[in-house]
Amino acid sequence: MAAMRIGILGSGSVGQTLADKLLTLGHEVTLGSRSEANPTGTAWAEAAGPHGHNGTFADTAEFGELVINATLGAVALAALEAAGAKALAGKVLVDVCNPLVFAADGTVTLDPVNDDSMGERIQRAFPDTRVVKALNTLSAPVMVDPTRVPGRHQLFVAGEDAGAKREVTALLESFGWPAADIVDLGGIQAARGLEMLMPFWLSMMRHHGHTDFNYAFQVAG
Amino acid sequence: MAAMRIGILGSGSVGQTLADKLLTLGHEVTLGSRSEANPTGTAWAEAAGPHGHNGTFADTAEFGELVINATLGAVALAALEAAGAKALAGKVLVDVCNPLVFAADGTVTLDPVNDDSMGERIQRAFPDTRVVKALNTLSAPVMVDPTRVPGRHQLFVAGEDAGAKREVTALLESFGWPAADIVDLGGIQAARGLEMLMPFWLSMMRHHGHTDFNYAFQVAG
Repeated sequence: MAAMRIGILGSGSVGQTLADKLLTLGHEVTLGSRSEANPTGTAWAEAAGPHGHNGTFADTAEFGELVINATLGAVALAALEAAGAKALAGKVLVDVCNPLVFAADGTVTLDPVNDDSMGERIQRAFPDTRVVKALNTLSAPVMVDPTRVPGRHQLFVAGEDAGAKREVTALLESFGWPAADIVDLGGIQAARGLEMLMPFWLSMMRHHGHTDFNYAFQVAG
Repeated sequence: MAAMRIGILGSGSVGQTLADKLLTLGHEVTLGSRSEANPTGTAWAEAAGPHGHNGTFADTAEFGELVINATLGAVALAALEAAGAKALAGKVLVDVCNPLVFAADGTVTLDPVNDDSMGERIQRAFPDTRVVKALNTLSAPVMVDPTRVPGRHQLFVAGEDAGAKREVTALLESFGWPAADIVDLGGIQAARGLEMLMPFWLSMMRHHGHTDFNYAFQVAG
């Protein structure tokens, strides 16, 4: 895969993990936050060397030939509005977010859920952007290093634009995912099911006591 | 596992598939419907031989030392009310249902979802019954014959009563599931995540074009 300029919205652990991996693959990366003075983004860019930058959401979307939404689901639409529809138009946007809502008693729910999803909301709000839901079903360290988990295991993509899904699949292959383990679930509505995996995934995390696990379907025939 | 009297609420394909398997394992089975004259239940019992019976939901709950809810989620509580709290008191109830709602445009949603589940609703409505959520994550043919799917793959149980989960685990082992592949996800609240797998499972069914697949996990360490 040729070196690209990639913008990552969200400077939390998911955004930083993806940014570090993309730098090692030779891409130029801007990590975006609400403010250019965000200390996490600034520190990351200082440590990242000449190909790593930080900036606002708008800077990041403008910079990226491909953009990744690694913000929290609760703030994703606001971050994308700040990024700007014009800067995102025509681009592939990889939507990694899960719309988790944390209650005081420790339970986690989703909003939206069931008859809508963040993937769909983002595609509706940015109709000129080629949204691909991906990478929301596993922990960040496993996203960029599938060998943390033994054997074969799977990733999923969903979106309306076949070309965009091919680009994202190529990016995931460059992370080390075999093409045969990247499952295309169809249009962006499949983001509902992918986001609704989270409560189960959290149960599995509690069961195993860590996040180095992943879905590995067995299929007849 | 010693032969038992098992009552199955719901005479659809899931109930019949489970009933057939339980007969081959030497159990005595009553398949329950709203009406004793239900033609599906009557036909099943006629073909089943001396150890297979049909009856009302109340007959079925009374008959079973262990009871399985294989009704549709939308009618499960009504079926269990008809079965009767007294007949279900103290018994293990395996809740297999998914609360699917089919829209005219082909989309499928869940009700309840997110902050509640059928497993929890049933446990709340029948506090003296030992509810175990199980078997709702795969097709009926695979439930009773794990070898339809290659390799190792997993089932999940959730419920408040550890003894009840042990009984259900023993029943699942008698179906051919290795103990190591029956994952206890904790209390009945984990039914939320298990039921919320359905939209993803339906996407996978469309992707593969059949239902002979199942969740498997790869786990580090």
